Amino acid sequence: MTGREGGADIGPIGENSPVVILVRPQLAENVGTTARAMANGGLFHLRLVAPRDGWPQSRAWYASSGAHRILDAATVHDTVDDAVADLHRVMATCPRPRHIVKTVMTPRGAAAELRARAAQGLRTGILFGPERAGLDNEDMARADTLVRYPLNPDFMSLNLAQAVLVMAYEWWMAEDTTAPRVLMTNETRVATKGELENFLSHLTRELDACGFLRNEQKRPGMVRNLRHLFQRGDVTEQELRTMHGVITELARGRKSGQTPG
Amino acid sequence: MTGREGGADIGPIGENSPVVILVRPQLAENVGTTARAMANGGLFHLRLVAPRDGWPQSRAWYASSGAHRILDAATVHDTVDDAVADLHRVMATCPRPRHIVKTVMTPRGAAAELRARAAQGLRTGILFGPERAGLDNEDMARADTLVRYPLNPDFMSLNLAQAVLVMAYEWWMAEDTTAPRVLMTNETRVATKGELENFLSHLTRELDACGFLRNEQKRPGMVRNLRHLFQRGDVTEQELRTMHGVITELARGRKSGQTPG
Repeated sequence: MTGREGGADIGPIGENSPVVILVRPQLAENVGTTARAMANGGLFHLRLVAPRDGWPQSRAWYASSGAHRILDAATVHDTVDDAVADLHRVMATCPRPRHIVKTVMTPRGAAAELRARAAQGLRTGILFGPERAGLDNEDMARADTLVRYPLNPDFMSLNLAQAVLVMAYEWWMAEDTTAPRVLMTNETRVATKGELENFLSHLTRELDACGFLRNEQKRPGMVRNLRHLFQRGDVTEQELRTMHGVITELARGRKSGQTPG
Repeated sequence: MTGREGGADIGPIGENSPVVILVRPQLAENVGTTARAMANGGLFHLRLVAPRDGWPQSRAWYASSGAHRILDAATVHDTVDDAVADLHRVMATCPRPRHIVKTVMTPRGAAAELRARAAQGLRTGILFGPERAGLDNEDMARADTLVRYPLNPDFMSLNLAQAVLVMAYEWWMAEDTTAPRVLMTNETRVATKGELENFLSHLTRELDACGFLRNEQKRPGMVRNLRHLFQRGDVTEQELRTMHGVITELARGRKSGQTPG
C-alpha cells in the first residue's frame, strides 16, 4: 500500500537534522511532495500532527518522487505538544504578522541556528501549518521562534512543499562550501547574443569556405566547441569587432594567396 | 480562456529583473506553477521556447495561484536563440555535470551576479530545461554560465517550479535587508534594565518574605540565577507588568491562607 518496495537511496541521515512537523496537513499529496523537498535538502525526520485524511495514504508515496524512506519512517501525533515533547528547540513558519511578542528569523538565519543547535547535540524541529489556514495561535505558542520568509510582499502564496523546500535548501546551504564563482566585470560593454551570433556566423562561413569544417560528421561538434569558447568569458562588443576583422583579414590573405594569376 | 479577468496584484515589476526562459516545457500546469514561483521572488518576465502542448493553455492559469499577469505577458519563441537575442547575459540551470568547459555557479552566486548585471543596466535570462530531459548541449552552448544547485547529491530530483523557486528566492534574498533575527514586539517594547531590576527586586522581596531564600550562603547565587533566566531573552515592559501581577497575586494567596485568625 505504501510502496515500501520502491524508493530511491536518499543518502545518509544527518545526525540531529531538524524534524519537519506538518500540523494538520490536508492533502496526502502535499505530505509526499514535502518528503521530496526534505530529501533535496538532506532532511529526513517527518512527523504529522492529526493529518486530515488519516495515515498512511498511498498518494503520499506516489507524490514523493522516491523519497519513500522519509514517509516510511514518519510518525503520527495527536497534538503539537506530543510531536515536540522530545525536542529542545522548536521553530514555527509563519507567513503573516501576528499580535504576539516573538523572535522572528529569516530562513537563512534559522538554518544557521539549527546547524548550531545540532552541533551542540540538541534536537530541533520546524512546524509547518495546514495548507490554507496556517498555524494557529496555540501552535505558535509552542515554538521558541518564528520563521518568516522575506518574499515578494505582494505575492506570498507558497504551497506547503515549497515552504519546506526553502527551509531544506537553507539547511543544506548553511554547511555547503561550493564556491559561488562570481565573474569580474569589464569597463567595456558586454556583447549581446545577437552580436555574438553575427560573429559566429561570419567565422563559420569563412571556415566552411576554407574547408576547415569539411568533415560533415565532426562539423556540428566543432562549431559547438567554438561557440563554447567564445561564450566562456565575458566577450565584449569591442572584442567581437576585432575578431570580425581578424577573420576577414585571414580569409583575404588566403584568397589572395590562392590567386596564381 | 486564459483567465485574464482574475489574478492577483503581484507588485511592481523590477527593472531588469531576469527573464525566466522555459525550454520545451511539457506540462502547462508546470508553466503555471513556475509563474507562481516567479511571483514569490519578484520575477515577472517569462518566455517559452516551443512549449510541447502549444500556448496559451488555460491549465497554466489555473495552476498559477493568481500569478496571471506573468502568464498574460509571456511570449513564445521557436528557438532558444530567438528567446535570448535581446539579452546580455544568459544562465542555464543544469543539475548534472556535463563534458563542457563552462563557468558553474551556485544559485546564490548566480543571484548576486544577476543583481549586479541588472544594476549595470544589462538584461539577463535564466534557461530551465524540459521536465525530464533537462537542457541539451545546444541549449547550454547558448548560456554564459551554468547554475548548479548544491543539494543532496543522493536526491537531486527537483520539479520545474521548485527549481524556479530556488532561483527566484535567491534573486529576492540577494537584495533583502531583513535582519536574520529580530524580536517582533508589536505595540509593546523591550524592557529597560531599570524595569527589569525593579521586577527582580519585587520578586526577591517576596521570596525573602516566604522563606524561599532563607539559606544565607546560597541566597546570592539563587538570586543571580533568577536574574540570568530573566535576562536570557528580550523581556518586554508589558510582560514585566504581568509578572509583577503574578508575584503579587501568588504572595497574597499565601498571606491570606496563613491568617488563621
